[in-house]
Amino acid sequence: MDQNNQERYEDSELYRIRHSLSHIMAQAVLEMFPEAKYTIGPPVENGFYYDFDLPRTLTPEDLEKIEKRMRQIVAGKYDFVRKVVSADEARRIFANQPYKLELINDLERGETDEHGQPLDEKPEISIYTHGNFVDLCRGPHVQNTSQINPSAFKLMSVAGAYWRGDEKNPQLQRIYGTAWRTKEELERYLQMLEEAKKRDHRKLGRDLEIFIFDDEVGPGLPLWLPRGGVIIEELEKLAKEMEEQAGYQRVRTPHLTKEDLFLRSGHLPYYAESMYPPMELEGVRYYVKPMNCPFHHKIYAAKPRSYRDLPVRLAEYGTCYRYEKSGELFGLMRVRSMQMNDAHIYCSEEQFEQEFLAVVELYLRYFALFGIEKYVMRLSTHHKRGLGKKYVDNERLWLKTEEMVRNAMRHGGVPFVEAADEAAFYGPKIDVQIWSAIGREFTLATNQVDFAVPERFNLTFVNRHGEEETPLCIHRAPLSTHERMVGFLLEHYAGNFPVWLSPEQVRIIPITDSHNEYARQLEQEMRAAGIRAEADLGQDRMNAKIRSAQLLKIPYMAVVGDQEVNSRTIALRRRDGSRQNDVPVQAFIEQVKERIRTRSAEL
Amino acid sequence: MDQNNQERYEDSELYRIRHSLSHIMAQAVLEMFPEAKYTIGPPVENGFYYDFDLPRTLTPEDLEKIEKRMRQIVAGKYDFVRKVVSADEARRIFANQPYKLELINDLERGETDEHGQPLDEKPEISIYTHGNFVDLCRGPHVQNTSQINPSAFKLMSVAGAYWRGDEKNPQLQRIYGTAWRTKEELERYLQMLEEAKKRDHRKLGRDLEIFIFDDEVGPGLPLWLPRGGVIIEELEKLAKEMEEQAGYQRVRTPHLTKEDLFLRSGHLPYYAESMYPPMELEGVRYYVKPMNCPFHHKIYAAKPRSYRDLPVRLAEYGTCYRYEKSGELFGLMRVRSMQMNDAHIYCSEEQFEQEFLAVVELYLRYFALFGIEKYVMRLSTHHKRGLGKKYVDNERLWLKTEEMVRNAMRHGGVPFVEAADEAAFYGPKIDVQIWSAIGREFTLATNQVDFAVPERFNLTFVNRHGEEETPLCIHRAPLSTHERMVGFLLEHYAGNFPVWLSPEQVRIIPITDSHNEYARQLEQEMRAAGIRAEADLGQDRMNAKIRSAQLLKIPYMAVVGDQEVNSRTIALRRRDGSRQNDVPVQAFIEQVKERIRTRSAEL
Repeated sequence: MDQNNQERYEDSELYRIRHSLSHIMAQAVLEMFPEAKYTIGPPVENGFYYDFDLPRTLTPEDLEKIEKRMRQIVAGKYDFVRKVVSADEARRIFANQPYKLELINDLERGETDEHGQPLDEKPEISIYTHGNFVDLCRGPHVQNTSQINPSAFKLMSVAGAYWRGDEKNPQLQRIYGTAWRTKEELERYLQMLEEAKKRDHRKLGRDLEIFIFDDEVGPGLPLWLPRGGVIIEELEKLAKEMEEQAGYQRVRTPHLTKEDLFLRSGHLPYYAESMYPPMELEGVRYYVKPMNCPFHHKIYAAKPRSYRDLPVRLAEYGTCYRYEKSGELFGLMRVRSMQMNDAHIYCSEEQFEQEFLAVVELYLRYFALFGIEKYVMRLSTHHKRGLGKKYVDNERLWLKTEEMVRNAMRHGGVPFVEAADEAAFYGPKIDVQIWSAIGREFTLATNQVDFAVPERFNLTFVNRHGEEETPLCIHRAPLSTHERMVGFLLEHYAGNFPVWLSPEQVRIIPITDSHNEYARQLEQEMRAAGIRAEADLGQDRMNAKIRSAQLLKIPYMAVVGDQEVNSRTIALRRRDGSRQNDVPVQAFIEQVKERIRTRSAEL
Repeated sequence: MDQNNQERYEDSELYRIRHSLSHIMAQAVLEMFPEAKYTIGPPVENGFYYDFDLPRTLTPEDLEKIEKRMRQIVAGKYDFVRKVVSADEARRIFANQPYKLELINDLERGETDEHGQPLDEKPEISIYTHGNFVDLCRGPHVQNTSQINPSAFKLMSVAGAYWRGDEKNPQLQRIYGTAWRTKEELERYLQMLEEAKKRDHRKLGRDLEIFIFDDEVGPGLPLWLPRGGVIIEELEKLAKEMEEQAGYQRVRTPHLTKEDLFLRSGHLPYYAESMYPPMELEGVRYYVKPMNCPFHHKIYAAKPRSYRDLPVRLAEYGTCYRYEKSGELFGLMRVRSMQMNDAHIYCSEEQFEQEFLAVVELYLRYFALFGIEKYVMRLSTHHKRGLGKKYVDNERLWLKTEEMVRNAMRHGGVPFVEAADEAAFYGPKIDVQIWSAIGREFTLATNQVDFAVPERFNLTFVNRHGEEETPLCIHRAPLSTHERMVGFLLEHYAGNFPVWLSPEQVRIIPITDSHNEYARQLEQEMRAAGIRAEADLGQDRMNAKIRSAQLLKIPYMAVVGDQEVNSRTIALRRRDGSRQNDVPVQAFIEQVKERIRTRSAEL
């Protein structure tokens, strides 16, 4: 969640319900384990949690008991009462709660709130009481527990956590709960979780033989199996086609560079902690690249440019490496290797609007193709207080380029929201949030304006008046990385890729061995037509072969027996379960070819 | 030159002529600079050199004088006389020549020969005298200087060199000469050099905007400009088509890995000095990959395999990084980044012959396509004395797989030569030497059998009898690396790429501004037909535009004026200078499309 959404969430009814349930859960836990130490318990997306220092590990039965007791407390119709207290008073109240005492001391120093978050100004110390339970808390809460629907919450799981997230501190047990306004909302959420589990790209990636991780290669570095390789090749073909039409030129740059390049770009030393450490040889330090931009800048600079040559659009499927912490890695969504559909557009100010909008429209064409219906474009701008620190120190240029982006979006009729203080170091950007078919949110693509870096690289062009001018640079990556995109598409399609993206498009299944020859013939014919077809000539029985094809979610099965051999047809079974007999081979091939050619979503 | 060729060369007349000329040159230099110290002067490919420690830097005029004096000495009909001497005698003869004294001391210790090369057994110390000049030398030489053709040698250049190649030692001046049997041979060689200079891929690469090197990125790491990008994309398209037809599956693997992978493969620690050094983070060492093999082995191992699944052919355009020493880098021919057309074929012993030959045939198809007419296939085998050191210690398997390769080549009717003691660590290999149109030699491709590594990775398949068996692995890279292949093709074609490989295929040139509209229309039409066409709408005059298109060696120029606009034709100028007026646009487009489709060499 970004900062703006977070603020809206904190004002919401759901936030108060969830926050109150975390107190109620703490009460239930403390009743069950009087010697328990309680720490912090904030609302989070979809629910809440609380971290406890407990004498033993919790069991699923414990959770049931705690949940039951929580319902009783809710039914008790207790008021939540806020009271401001002095630090000394607070210390008396939480005298045998060491974690609370630590928080109170911090509050007194005025550096962090009760969740350990840094604070701008010294806060009041407040406590909230309901019934006989009291907690150190800044709120807000419901007024009375009767505002909580007892059928609309559920405890979900227990996980280990460290006090203040630091593994040098004692280990705590974190209980997660989910909470909603109504029973229906809760059920919808649980159902969505169930669906999401089935669609989890990590599970599908394994089942459909898309990618693996290997211990000897290392975490966050996926190896793409042949079926994943097909998807990647298809995505690249798509991008290359679309971008060729849009006037992009493709370049290639190495994955290594001397540190000099990233010193010039300004990534070093600021970005160093996201980079793999340097390799030093013969007194020179080399880095694996975390991004392609500076290489493209060098290519722009490789020859003199005139306004007639602009815009120059340089595209590359460059693989970048960033060192995400082990704990933050997640399937294909958070990885260390990133195959990026990257490009940089160098243009003049007059050309900016058209170029920027063309990129936005490219995004929309991709979304239409993948059936992504829900998306939000968000303009991230600078904040005055970050100038010279988070942001290049030139407010005039910030205001000007932000207005240029706003105008472009308005003139193009593209709706967008704004988020202050979320820009890139070198300029404003449009982030695109998209939602998969099951409602999972992803930031897939960004479209950034760079008014600062071209100057660092001395990029110029000769303008109409014969003068040297610095171009603007648009950074864009509409298909994100292969890793994230394939992860998203796996979940979005639940593995049921459209025909053009399916690693295997047709599985040919002979009814008995005597039909193998015909199956092999069909395989050849289809392959010659550019269809990824495979005849299953293994020893399994037909039904087992159908089952394996279904497990791989292959769009078409062509079952062939005596009748099909005699009439040169196939018995067609589609992935969606529909069937059609006596389909002439040629007609089938033509139809599949058409689906592929048009990248159709139809089966 | 490999070892076998070297031995043949040392027995040759040319070797003796060149060796003798190096002495004659030393004599001339010492006459000119009595205080000069002379060091070593061996014959090399195409000629000879000698390294001197001189009181001043040589000028081109000096070379002329030295050459003139050499001709006089040759005309003097001196005998070359060999004499074996004791170390003490030798030290007396070369008393004021410190470099010779150092060599004599080494010879006495019996470790190195007079060129500083290590020796197996303690050598005799011999000197060669002609006229009044004497040199420490093991020979061989001509018997009399009259055997040297005075019109068939030439001094070429002076370059800096360090005594014994070590930059901590004094700097010397190295004079290069070329020498042949006849004047005609010399002239042919000089002409070839002239042609080679024009064709030098470094010059062409710059002129045709194919690639650049950048100081801030580092040596040996080329950046591919858009025109180079097109060539690479076309080569990849070609390889993917050919390999898809041949049943390869494409995979993708990261450029980084934990060291564990290369420890398992056995590359570490033995191969470490060719690798970039490790990056260490959170106690784990990561390496940039110098090869793709172990990643492919992991993908093979990702699921159980049966004999029915074999052969498994895994292909990848994987970019590898090897740390070549700065001094060894050379344009695109010796680089540190290698985009490899790599693949590994896992097969059973029965399948080996067919698979191995299929690879050889794939090579030949590529060669035919590129018009490479001269090539040699060389089978490199092990040598008993290297077992356990250079080679996996299993002589039975060596002999067996070598015989398998021999049989495959014989059965396929593919001629080959053999070279002992040149195999890979893990098995015999076929190296393919090819010669460019101007006779430059390249090792472009290798085809290796690996009987050792699959076992290290526990690769298995279940054979016909239900038993686990280890597959053989064939390593192959018929298109070599993009770097080397493009370097080769630049020189081979002298930049005149066939239409399908040409970065820009048609340049449309309007005679005046009033024809710009038609030019733009043609550009669109051609692009829609998949032709890389560009209309030159700049401000230059027509002739200047034609000149720029010629400099870029664009295959076709379509010049358009009033007549062409009216009749919807073009005036065609081909790169070879031929012209054709009134070519209907549609006919031209069809013809170019056909050239592209068939990857024709015709213009």
